[in-house]
Amino acid sequence: MEYKFSEKIANLKPSAIREIFKSLTDPSIISFAAGNPSPESFPVEDLARFAAEIFANESTTALQYNITEGYTPLRQAIAERQKKRFGESMVREDDSVLVVSGGQQGIELACKTFCNEGDAIICENPSFIGSLNSFRSCGATPVGVPMEIDGISLTALEETLKNTPNAKLMYLIPTFHNPTGITMSLEKRLGVLELAKKYDLVIIEDNPYGELRFAGEDLPNLKALDTDGRVIYCSSFSKILSAGMRVGFVVANSTICSKMTVAKQGEDVHTNIFFQMLCHKFMTNCDLDAHIAKINALYRRKCNLMLECLDKYVPSDKVEFTRPEGGLFIWGIVKDTDDASNIVKLAIEKKVAVVPGTAFNCDTEAKSNAFRLNYSTPSDEQIVEGVKRLGEVFKSL
Amino acid sequence: MEYKFSEKIANLKPSAIREIFKSLTDPSIISFAAGNPSPESFPVEDLARFAAEIFANESTTALQYNITEGYTPLRQAIAERQKKRFGESMVREDDSVLVVSGGQQGIELACKTFCNEGDAIICENPSFIGSLNSFRSCGATPVGVPMEIDGISLTALEETLKNTPNAKLMYLIPTFHNPTGITMSLEKRLGVLELAKKYDLVIIEDNPYGELRFAGEDLPNLKALDTDGRVIYCSSFSKILSAGMRVGFVVANSTICSKMTVAKQGEDVHTNIFFQMLCHKFMTNCDLDAHIAKINALYRRKCNLMLECLDKYVPSDKVEFTRPEGGLFIWGIVKDTDDASNIVKLAIEKKVAVVPGTAFNCDTEAKSNAFRLNYSTPSDEQIVEGVKRLGEVFKSL
Repeated sequence: MEYKFSEKIANLKPSAIREIFKSLTDPSIISFAAGNPSPESFPVEDLARFAAEIFANESTTALQYNITEGYTPLRQAIAERQKKRFGESMVREDDSVLVVSGGQQGIELACKTFCNEGDAIICENPSFIGSLNSFRSCGATPVGVPMEIDGISLTALEETLKNTPNAKLMYLIPTFHNPTGITMSLEKRLGVLELAKKYDLVIIEDNPYGELRFAGEDLPNLKALDTDGRVIYCSSFSKILSAGMRVGFVVANSTICSKMTVAKQGEDVHTNIFFQMLCHKFMTNCDLDAHIAKINALYRRKCNLMLECLDKYVPSDKVEFTRPEGGLFIWGIVKDTDDASNIVKLAIEKKVAVVPGTAFNCDTEAKSNAFRLNYSTPSDEQIVEGVKRLGEVFKSL
Repeated sequence: MEYKFSEKIANLKPSAIREIFKSLTDPSIISFAAGNPSPESFPVEDLARFAAEIFANESTTALQYNITEGYTPLRQAIAERQKKRFGESMVREDDSVLVVSGGQQGIELACKTFCNEGDAIICENPSFIGSLNSFRSCGATPVGVPMEIDGISLTALEETLKNTPNAKLMYLIPTFHNPTGITMSLEKRLGVLELAKKYDLVIIEDNPYGELRFAGEDLPNLKALDTDGRVIYCSSFSKILSAGMRVGFVVANSTICSKMTVAKQGEDVHTNIFFQMLCHKFMTNCDLDAHIAKINALYRRKCNLMLECLDKYVPSDKVEFTRPEGGLFIWGIVKDTDDASNIVKLAIEKKVAVVPGTAFNCDTEAKSNAFRLNYSTPSDEQIVEGVKRLGEVFKSL
């Protein structure tokens, strides 16, 4: 039979990242294209020990249906952690914690909870492709606002807000932004909140990398600055414990959380309860700060290595790179062009993979003069050799 | 701030089942209200052993990001199992298997993939509340068709199809239906497929209980009868290995599966990979048939015990009960009334909980003359005592 798919799904294109991944089956290609945490960040022995304990002592709870909101002790541990790490105002009196199946689900549920089909979501441009596609698959349209080196352009944001009456949400990654690695300045964080108030929008603050700061000083999260219950804070354990387990969380006003809970019930009833219990055991029995400090030492070293190699091997008159203080990504901006797609193709020919900037555009037809590099997945040797190859690409232009 | 939720979420009411669950904190109440598998069905020792093996030998795969489609060896094992258990035609040459986060997610993704907001989904009435709310939370409207003792009324189905031009899907639970326990006859299965063809609809076949047959003979699944690629088959491991792990699967035409995969990517990227590996290990290293035979012996005994007690303690002139050949539920139909809500209230007063039929209505404003009983969760003693209490309710009328 001929299928008549919904408009939102029929129009969705497979992600360019996935297409690149297909080319990565060639083992001679060095990939800077992934967004994976380093396997060294997984505390395997601790998780194995806690798993054995759960099977021995709490197997029925761990294998039976549970409530949609999440495992209560984990929700409490998350609230405590957020307050300890990012300040008391991260979780206000009328806030709740909702456990979700990876940070991505929190973002998707927020969209479902606030957007009718055809509504718009204001995003940084570029932005995380997973979230953009998630919005599209809900029938909402991402509308991009250009970024500057200290985050979203406030002038362009206000202009866009004026011209987008059907905007229901802003979606922002203020800290160690994916794909650019940029962190939004305090001034802009305050400006964004002011504009959200003026135009009466709710903000999704996506902060999967917030714990991964390896340089500079913390800036307050939008959630911590917000006094109106306007910010839906989404984060996860993917970058600090395990990405494959799919455990994330939302901190938001209780009214929002209860609506998102009903939406979540219709998607997967609840998140894998065994791994919720594992997360709780790790948080309460291990030194999470020490564990994260180890990850950050690793990523600091890898990021610095990649930046040193980029300085050494890639001609600075042809491309400039962001210098992240945390997270997983460096953004390369090619000078004197509006289209860097040839770079990505030439790089694959030289056996090094990067993600084209077009993958992260809100407007899927638009060009991009940039590309994304990841330093958490490749080995040190691969970083050196891969950047050398990238340098050859630019020297050959 | 005042929140402006999406229309689909703003209109969604919390499930009546959840409200009943709140009253279950009273330990003196015997609950027949749950839909949980018996904890005795969880193969804890095997799962613990396989978990230790995975942590020891494959921890990186088990904790890292994976592909959205699911763990390839598990997808193969699922295809083999379906063919072995329900016939070769369950998985056709142009079909794929998609691993999802519980059967519920398969159903929700099917809705997202085919329905625009405002579209209708034709359902048996009553039907599973989780799916009805899932459709509502996607902006689709469940439209109910009355059931008879051998399944959906074909006459009423055709009448409804004629009058519902915006119907995009049929959602059916042909085997051990929730909440009624009814199994659709072969004649009606063929009739449903014919009508789906005539009105050009795709069918979601929800079969979470199909493996749980403890009496009678198998009937072919709609999926096995379908030669058009019209049936999206949704099932899960919730009732045979663990409900809390949230691992389910979809078998459908590859074109449909690839669209559902894109939709799933926007929801949770992929299903918990560790438990996908656990399921695969259990399926390939243990005797799944023997394990399921044990569960079915347990449910046969519990179902028979409940039916015997109902015959003995509940006056048959006031209420009649379905006699399921598998699954988890018995449906009580109160005679000479169109509204059994008083029974549910009186039962709670007598300290026994059942789910009111209204919870399963497609039309949330409609009355119901029925209620649902579950026999898999209560102990034998609770079944006897709880049915005695229910008998007292009817004798007091």
